[in-house]
Amino acid sequence: MKRIYMDNAATSFPKAPKVSESIINFIENIGGNVGRGTHFSSYTAGSVVYETRELLCKLFKFDEPMNVIFTMNITQSLNMILKGFLKEGDHVLISSMEHNAVLRPLYSLLEKGITFDILPCDDKGYLDPQIIKKYIKSNTKLLVITHASNVSGTIQNVKEIGKICKENNIDFVLDSAQTAGILDINFYDLNLSALAFTGHKGLLGPQGIGGFLVTSEFAKKIKPLIEGGTGSFSESYTQPEILPDKFESGTLNIPGIFGLNAALKFILDTGLDKIRNKEKQLTQKFIKEIKKIQNIELVGPDESYDRMAVISLDFKNIDNSEAAFILDNQYGIMTRVGLHCSPLAHKTLGTFPKGTVRFSFGYFTSEEDIEYAIQCIEKISKL
Amino acid sequence: MKRIYMDNAATSFPKAPKVSESIINFIENIGGNVGRGTHFSSYTAGSVVYETRELLCKLFKFDEPMNVIFTMNITQSLNMILKGFLKEGDHVLISSMEHNAVLRPLYSLLEKGITFDILPCDDKGYLDPQIIKKYIKSNTKLLVITHASNVSGTIQNVKEIGKICKENNIDFVLDSAQTAGILDINFYDLNLSALAFTGHKGLLGPQGIGGFLVTSEFAKKIKPLIEGGTGSFSESYTQPEILPDKFESGTLNIPGIFGLNAALKFILDTGLDKIRNKEKQLTQKFIKEIKKIQNIELVGPDESYDRMAVISLDFKNIDNSEAAFILDNQYGIMTRVGLHCSPLAHKTLGTFPKGTVRFSFGYFTSEEDIEYAIQCIEKISKL
Repeated sequence: MKRIYMDNAATSFPKAPKVSESIINFIENIGGNVGRGTHFSSYTAGSVVYETRELLCKLFKFDEPMNVIFTMNITQSLNMILKGFLKEGDHVLISSMEHNAVLRPLYSLLEKGITFDILPCDDKGYLDPQIIKKYIKSNTKLLVITHASNVSGTIQNVKEIGKICKENNIDFVLDSAQTAGILDINFYDLNLSALAFTGHKGLLGPQGIGGFLVTSEFAKKIKPLIEGGTGSFSESYTQPEILPDKFESGTLNIPGIFGLNAALKFILDTGLDKIRNKEKQLTQKFIKEIKKIQNIELVGPDESYDRMAVISLDFKNIDNSEAAFILDNQYGIMTRVGLHCSPLAHKTLGTFPKGTVRFSFGYFTSEEDIEYAIQCIEKISKL
Repeated sequence: MKRIYMDNAATSFPKAPKVSESIINFIENIGGNVGRGTHFSSYTAGSVVYETRELLCKLFKFDEPMNVIFTMNITQSLNMILKGFLKEGDHVLISSMEHNAVLRPLYSLLEKGITFDILPCDDKGYLDPQIIKKYIKSNTKLLVITHASNVSGTIQNVKEIGKICKENNIDFVLDSAQTAGILDINFYDLNLSALAFTGHKGLLGPQGIGGFLVTSEFAKKIKPLIEGGTGSFSESYTQPEILPDKFESGTLNIPGIFGLNAALKFILDTGLDKIRNKEKQLTQKFIKEIKKIQNIELVGPDESYDRMAVISLDFKNIDNSEAAFILDNQYGIMTRVGLHCSPLAHKTLGTFPKGTVRFSFGYFTSEEDIEYAIQCIEKISKL
């Protein structure tokens, strides 16, 4: 059976060319730790890690490679920012499309006297930035928002949101899980204080590597969640204040960084425009055809919106779990069913608690894959 | 110039055979996320991740694969345990041989009203377990100790330490950074509450993967430091209590786990005895020869002790940094100079603040490598 991967919102597949080659080159031929050895292989590894910070700067139009922090994944990045920055009495704003990576830390921070409000989005998942002003309190310190929904592909107006944050002296943190490597993100244009990213989705790198970009000013206000050896200021019993060391304790995922390095070069060489246009075409084609099929409801914005290639469907004739099972088992189409770790987004979109079947495409998805998926969905819709 | 890697205490090199093959197989052929897709590749990835938990159970004689938690590195594991478990008013015991991965979190916890005492070790780095009793207070909740020093290779009497902890109802956490994959560690025999490990040193896997094994009872007392999507109980805004989900938020380093899987199989097939004996022989040979050379001081236990293959030298005729530079630059021998992120251990050993040149061998180090290193050290000692 042919197998068609349509779960790129969970992790992209295939990865960029040369990702595994780069990882293997490190593991087999270089092998050193970074900042922890006085030798050739340690220096070589260090220079590729630094270059990867520079590539991320290039991608996000950011000027400070040493302010690019590596973590295991974007959830860790968001936790480090939220739990490191927020203090008792602080108030936070999030949207009603957030992932559990933001919701769960904030719920747990409630017991430390940190409160938050959920900005309501419309039934397609869009936040009207003007609403923010109504929710700002004197103690509002932070606004965190997902750039685009991992359920419905809805892209937020982050330029306008950043403007409002700046006007109100609120630090603005962007969750780019679904957009990095696809949309053109300009750190300074958006007035960001920090941008959290993951390496294994649109950035086309391996799982296990994520991070965040942070301004020096904002970094000063964040206490490190993880502390330990940094290979720097070893004599000190306290975590160094310099970046990236402050937030990078212990050995980094260096093979992961080598993989991400190759992926970033592929993306920068290909160009975001080309990637974005390809994904847009696939999305438009898919949604146009879906709308012709009975018993299938499209959740979130249709093809006329500027949206990501993340599409949630609700099967009316059959249980969504069963539809996903048939798609995989009978037709080899890999999707993801359920709540996608985003119960709040599903409530906003009206699909809680049943969830949806999510199709998510990537740069390597083909027109033929889309046509095949449509045929299969049509068959299932008639069961 | 030939290159000889003697920095295995920082990260082992080469890795076990099939480590990169296993990683590539995942990245190129499987590629799914775990617990996040309703499809073939997601299930396949999940089964290898589960098998890796089982392999770690086998290695550490532990019964509960779901209580094996994956993190990015052992520093993260230790932070998760310390910061998640300790509460205001608690008292902790550590040894004077600890790494900054334990010291820095504890220093930072001081401001939360958590105190600690440093159990004094002798000038070879050994802790007399009987000393512990003198330091136990009514609020002593935890003892954390490094199984063997990353500076001097000193192995602690963890069996006796565990016994004392049990008798006094103190949770015992072992930092196995320098011993996992080399020494035979029996979780229950040592009366451990948790065992923190890293995958890229003696376990011969890639950087970027570590974790901890934890009893269910101890896990209940630890709040998760990182919270977010777990692919389970998605409808809930709070972190699930089940293991491993409670401590595994966001996407795991699955390529890293695939690499570790291959490495663990290699270690279990080879046998810890064989690995340990090889490293012991290399160490004994090296130290015996070093003792014959003038101008070189061996720091820590000599070859008559049961110690790890981590050996610190202090050059008396030349600056240690210069010695390490010559070793690398002129002879191709890769070592690590300085404080090794363990200022406290260097104070105990009498080598603070100048530090030492550390030679650390692995299973793949050869007798010839040792002989060559000795020749080079002898030349440098005469400069």
